Amino acid sequence: MDALIDETSSGLGRVVTCVAPVNIAVVKYWGKTNEDLIIPLNDSISLTLSTEHLRARTTIKTIPQSNDITFELNGVTEKLTKRLSRAIQLCREEAVRQNTATQEVVSAGLTIISDNNFPTAAGLASSAAGFACLVCALQHLYGIQGDVSAIVRQGSGSACRSVFGGFVRWAKGHREDGNDSIARQLFPASHWPELRVLIVVVSDHKKETSSTKGMQTTVETSDLLKFRTEVVVPKRCEDMERAIEKRDFPSFAELTMRDSNQFHATCLDTYPPIFYLNSTSQEILMLCHDYNQKKGAATVAYSFDAGANAFLFTLNKSVPEICGLLQARFGVTDFKGDPVSDFCLHEEHGSSISGSKTKDVVKYVIVTKVGEGAHLVENDTSS
Amino acid sequence: MDALIDETSSGLGRVVTCVAPVNIAVVKYWGKTNEDLIIPLNDSISLTLSTEHLRARTTIKTIPQSNDITFELNGVTEKLTKRLSRAIQLCREEAVRQNTATQEVVSAGLTIISDNNFPTAAGLASSAAGFACLVCALQHLYGIQGDVSAIVRQGSGSACRSVFGGFVRWAKGHREDGNDSIARQLFPASHWPELRVLIVVVSDHKKETSSTKGMQTTVETSDLLKFRTEVVVPKRCEDMERAIEKRDFPSFAELTMRDSNQFHATCLDTYPPIFYLNSTSQEILMLCHDYNQKKGAATVAYSFDAGANAFLFTLNKSVPEICGLLQARFGVTDFKGDPVSDFCLHEEHGSSISGSKTKDVVKYVIVTKVGEGAHLVENDTSS
Repeated sequence: MDALIDETSSGLGRVVTCVAPVNIAVVKYWGKTNEDLIIPLNDSISLTLSTEHLRARTTIKTIPQSNDITFELNGVTEKLTKRLSRAIQLCREEAVRQNTATQEVVSAGLTIISDNNFPTAAGLASSAAGFACLVCALQHLYGIQGDVSAIVRQGSGSACRSVFGGFVRWAKGHREDGNDSIARQLFPASHWPELRVLIVVVSDHKKETSSTKGMQTTVETSDLLKFRTEVVVPKRCEDMERAIEKRDFPSFAELTMRDSNQFHATCLDTYPPIFYLNSTSQEILMLCHDYNQKKGAATVAYSFDAGANAFLFTLNKSVPEICGLLQARFGVTDFKGDPVSDFCLHEEHGSSISGSKTKDVVKYVIVTKVGEGAHLVENDTSS
Repeated sequence: MDALIDETSSGLGRVVTCVAPVNIAVVKYWGKTNEDLIIPLNDSISLTLSTEHLRARTTIKTIPQSNDITFELNGVTEKLTKRLSRAIQLCREEAVRQNTATQEVVSAGLTIISDNNFPTAAGLASSAAGFACLVCALQHLYGIQGDVSAIVRQGSGSACRSVFGGFVRWAKGHREDGNDSIARQLFPASHWPELRVLIVVVSDHKKETSSTKGMQTTVETSDLLKFRTEVVVPKRCEDMERAIEKRDFPSFAELTMRDSNQFHATCLDTYPPIFYLNSTSQEILMLCHDYNQKKGAATVAYSFDAGANAFLFTLNKSVPEICGLLQARFGVTDFKGDPVSDFCLHEEHGSSISGSKTKDVVKYVIVTKVGEGAHLVENDTSS
């Protein structure tokens, strides 16, 4: 995040607006060593998605002569959760510590207005974008300098990765207070401009286990999780960094798919087991393997978070063909996000892969790319 | 297997008929250290199911003045596979070594007629019953003494557990030649007479990965399998033996469910991943957890092999209620096997659990119990 501190402003009577992105992990976070401070069991690596199509937006206004904090999400007044209150408290303390805002400023009431430009219920990590956005706005309001990812982390773990753009690694850290469990940018979005992300939003009627509750149960009951976090992930993070550094798509793709599968394997090893992949997710997943096999190299990769939606990764040259494949297999007609020039489906794939058409199981596809982290969009001192 | 050796018979012109059971593992076998000798990566524990409802039956007749071996399965003449030939060869060698049959006898041609009283394609481990049955018949034909499970193992790995009745453990052994990778009975079927097994045969249209090919890919690609076989399974086998010894159903149930889930987790950790559980399997699985939670204790357990069918374990007193539950949830009307006296569904379960009725996804249910191992049923020297 760019430091953009208006040192002349007292912070009172200001209106600050930030936007923040969604991020999708390619080496997954699942399980905490400290539930309260949200310190993860292992490092994770993510891609920050462009805010052009998916973003949280938060506007914060100080209210002098008041202590009230009001919070509105998508037009509805919401109660301030414990985690929200805590994020605000931590920002205020940090501002006072850095001496960038007076006690008067940090004591003033706040009006917080947030919205997401995508359905909150679509399972697209809205809370990650939301928390990153809130802390970004408070940072600019109070003039906090430096990295705020440790504060964001304590609001909603993986949200700390949305602080930065491009390719991000969240370290588990070693300190008991969690202060070194922070996110950092590995490479900016511009490092790999050909990379594209297709979000396949899947119809799902099943009540899902919340990720907070789910990972807690996995930590308590899965033997395999311990091995994954201690043995598999450390090496995988290094391999993933190298694959991204070299823009080696086949390696990036295989590591991404393997990590997604292993995460879901630990969910199945949980007692009672947790299922996030439904039959459509499985179908998309096997379609990717079939397609890659026909292409003779990993051309598309999938990743699934704690939900049924698929995040597909590919290079821009393959987007038309993969959209054609999704259209042929699932009858998808609603492609949102970046325009796709020419849908196409090579005969060789069309004939064998699109054979069994399954309809109405995919709602829509969002075509997007890697983008910037949380950032200020408006800083109005006149209002 | 009872030794039943007719020492006066030369083995020529004899007709021997054996039956052999299906077995279902509660600590799963998945992966070999030696593909050729079929030496498993870990010990496994299984229950042998009664031959009353599910059995292979094999009749073998010697044909003097011929070297031909003909094989008929379910009324259709089949080619002798490499594994079948090998099992026959091993039995012949053992008979010669033990001096229980002359060279003339073991050189004589064979007519082998096999059938299963359940659909071969139903995914009920027909090859396990089939191989155990073939070797059992050859054992009696040639008068082989002692344990033949190492021979059966080389035909079809888990088939060696069908040699014995009751509760069986197949040791991975330590020898490179596999000769100590044998099955042994832990407890006879009479040890736990209250135990019941319900096989829920699920409709599945998906082409499944064969277990031979599947486990090979898992061994090659899954990081989690190694940890499972080396760390988790050894302890779990001890815990399982103790639970069975004490007839401690809740412990037996939890260990069984956890092991089934972990096996399927390693399938998901395979690259590309393997899915054996379909949405019906998942529904049955979650139904068991819901039911156990409502009962306040593990009352039913599930286990899934390399297929979508569920093997449910419970005590005889709970069979009517669990059948009632399957009837209410899946509309099952076809209950085969042991008669169920009074289907019932307690209001408390019926109201909440059977809410969403899914039809036509379960073909039928077979109600059965633990039974005897492979054994001779006819030994006719007059023909």
